[in-house]
Amino acid sequence: MQRHFDEELNEIRKELVRMAGLAEMLVGRSVQILVERNPALANDVWQAEEEVNRKQVEIDEDCLRLLALHQPMAVDLRFLVSTLRITGELERIADQAVNIIEAAQVLIEKPEVKPLIDIPKMAVLASGMVKDSLNAFVQKNTQLASEVLFRDDQVDAYKDQIFRELLTYMLSDPKTIERAIELILISRHIERIADHATNIAEDAIYYVEGRDVRHHAGE
Amino acid sequence: MQRHFDEELNEIRKELVRMAGLAEMLVGRSVQILVERNPALANDVWQAEEEVNRKQVEIDEDCLRLLALHQPMAVDLRFLVSTLRITGELERIADQAVNIIEAAQVLIEKPEVKPLIDIPKMAVLASGMVKDSLNAFVQKNTQLASEVLFRDDQVDAYKDQIFRELLTYMLSDPKTIERAIELILISRHIERIADHATNIAEDAIYYVEGRDVRHHAGE
Repeated sequence: MQRHFDEELNEIRKELVRMAGLAEMLVGRSVQILVERNPALANDVWQAEEEVNRKQVEIDEDCLRLLALHQPMAVDLRFLVSTLRITGELERIADQAVNIIEAAQVLIEKPEVKPLIDIPKMAVLASGMVKDSLNAFVQKNTQLASEVLFRDDQVDAYKDQIFRELLTYMLSDPKTIERAIELILISRHIERIADHATNIAEDAIYYVEGRDVRHHAGE
Repeated sequence: MQRHFDEELNEIRKELVRMAGLAEMLVGRSVQILVERNPALANDVWQAEEEVNRKQVEIDEDCLRLLALHQPMAVDLRFLVSTLRITGELERIADQAVNIIEAAQVLIEKPEVKPLIDIPKMAVLASGMVKDSLNAFVQKNTQLASEVLFRDDQVDAYKDQIFRELLTYMLSDPKTIERAIELILISRHIERIADHATNIAEDAIYYVEGRDVRHHAGE
């Protein structure tokens, strides 16, 4: 019984890694479309987003079935509860990537406001946080999870820097306003992706240590 | 045993309603500060936000304890799993309200771009969605939950309308750009509050009917 149960947990873990891979791909692709100004890169993203949504429903169902059937305790219970939370975070990450793609599709039809430098850097940072937070969870690596939490400050610094720079463009040339606002909103979507990654990192710590680090609980 | 368990579930339900009340208060207050331009209204909000965070940790702990101790099935399992998700939504709603409050505190120090009409209306709509989604969950009212899901389109219409109107202000007077962008970002925070309410409404339907309506699963 326990052995079969462990195999089922492993299967869920693998599915979660696949789901995360799709979400990461969408994040990378969204900024690639914007930077390379290549609309063809969006062709297969809608299918990937549907796949993310489908995986969320499937993984959640599996977790609920195991919770009901096996009534697990301690670390197994924490694994299933964390996974139920993480699928939600990954689905929202994919949503944010789609928001960026939709904005990018409009933007690349128009002249560039400026060569993009900070937005791609910010996206690489956020995407790395998604990857590392999931790795931290799967590999039970709380050190890596803590590092992800610290990187959130860098994301905020990029966000402020991008806002200030685009503001100067808008002030000196009002024709750029609409496009500059879209870029600001894109930076906010990237910020949210990083937020979701920190949530996953917190779940990783909770799973391994049974300690709720959200809002520094129990400090 | 079952009777004691039912009492514990009731206690969680009451705590969740209290947590939701705090989150709704924060949403209402955030727009009130903006509209009445009264910074004193922000005095007690930080305490309320901390209380929301504390309640999330406490309610989640209670849910996990009951999951581990009682190994509930069917509707009780769905109640606990949904509650674990809903505390996350309420905490994010409170976060968004705090984002609005922080933006409002800066904005009300400066001259008004325009009298605010659509933003308060949009906020009333989103706040009503939070209230009704939670009521739908607590009262097992799937009809009310479905109505909340439909209202999300109205929120999107307000978002687009607010964007278009503020864009004309920025184009005709670049001095308004910075303030107008803050108002656009505030409308996006309200949009996210409505998104979280729709997530709660989906959890309400899942709890009552055992049916996952996210991404129209099983359509």
